[in-house]
Amino acid sequence: MARSNPERRAALLDAALEVLAEEGARGLTFRAVDQRAAVPAGTASNYFANRDALLAQCANRVYERLEPDADTLAQGLEGPRDAARVTALMHQVVDRVAAFPTGFLALLELRLAALRRPELREVLTRRIGEDIRFNTDYHLATGLPGDATTVQLLILALNWLILERLTLPDLFGAEHRTALVDALVARLLAGENTTPAN
Amino acid sequence: MARSNPERRAALLDAALEVLAEEGARGLTFRAVDQRAAVPAGTASNYFANRDALLAQCANRVYERLEPDADTLAQGLEGPRDAARVTALMHQVVDRVAAFPTGFLALLELRLAALRRPELREVLTRRIGEDIRFNTDYHLATGLPGDATTVQLLILALNWLILERLTLPDLFGAEHRTALVDALVARLLAGENTTPAN
Repeated sequence: MARSNPERRAALLDAALEVLAEEGARGLTFRAVDQRAAVPAGTASNYFANRDALLAQCANRVYERLEPDADTLAQGLEGPRDAARVTALMHQVVDRVAAFPTGFLALLELRLAALRRPELREVLTRRIGEDIRFNTDYHLATGLPGDATTVQLLILALNWLILERLTLPDLFGAEHRTALVDALVARLLAGENTTPAN
Repeated sequence: MARSNPERRAALLDAALEVLAEEGARGLTFRAVDQRAAVPAGTASNYFANRDALLAQCANRVYERLEPDADTLAQGLEGPRDAARVTALMHQVVDRVAAFPTGFLALLELRLAALRRPELREVLTRRIGEDIRFNTDYHLATGLPGDATTVQLLILALNWLILERLTLPDLFGAEHRTALVDALVARLLAGENTTPAN
């Protein structure tokens, strides 16, 4: 029977994320997780049926830790609903995600591992799809400017900007990255009602 | 003395890219490259001073293989210079990069390896920076709509879209990805002269 101490489970998953970010999916063994979490050998295998189950739950754990708290979510529903507010929120999101590099890098390693694991690919597609829908619905519910396409385009560009910040921070310096976020939001919102040219 | 048969060197680097994309930087040994290239053991070590030199040259090789040919570059300088043309060119770029998944994934693995290798980080920052400058200069030289910021924002969003296409192709289906590229170009261009709101 799988153990169910939720704190212990979370600590094991956090250790697994660190192993993933530092050593890639190939380094993710129950033994490595036990060592990283500083628990007796055999602990992780009591909590996860197998390595695939562990990999699948790692993605959930990243999103669990990235979830904004209730205060942050409520703030999005307050104040003016204008482009300046969207810009401020996007800077906050970028900073929140980049402040948890282990989570971002672990998700990237999970994507790479999924190239050879169709089940993991399904799990990631579902979990990341949920996140995109959550962000889109939240954005539309706030009444902030920008439609569903805007939200998806923001997610694409900001994700790669975070990748640059974490892996090659000198490619665009901090100031230039800030200016890129500002321009991205301003231009996408101003161009929102443009019909694509084909 | 390092050997200098250019075809052999290129074949070794192509084998190295395959090893990187499939096994990550940790799997990249001279022995693995020799095996993948089907050459006698010891060949790779005659061409590259050490593993760092090999990693550094892998990035160059990806860009060498992605370089558009002279005809493609010349085409950019012909015909109407409008949003529809930028859209068509962006679809071409996405298709060209995505058609070489080994190169895209190898570069991603190099970025991850660079987290622990400051010298490799410098090499990648320089090489990727050159590519961004090349694309920006080319775009501005064509007289197509869009400034340097437009080009950088396109690069950010399209790179992540390619990552989605290669790792989680069902997250956005093919049609939706096409629509996202269309909307991205149309909105960024229409909003180009908007002053960021802060």
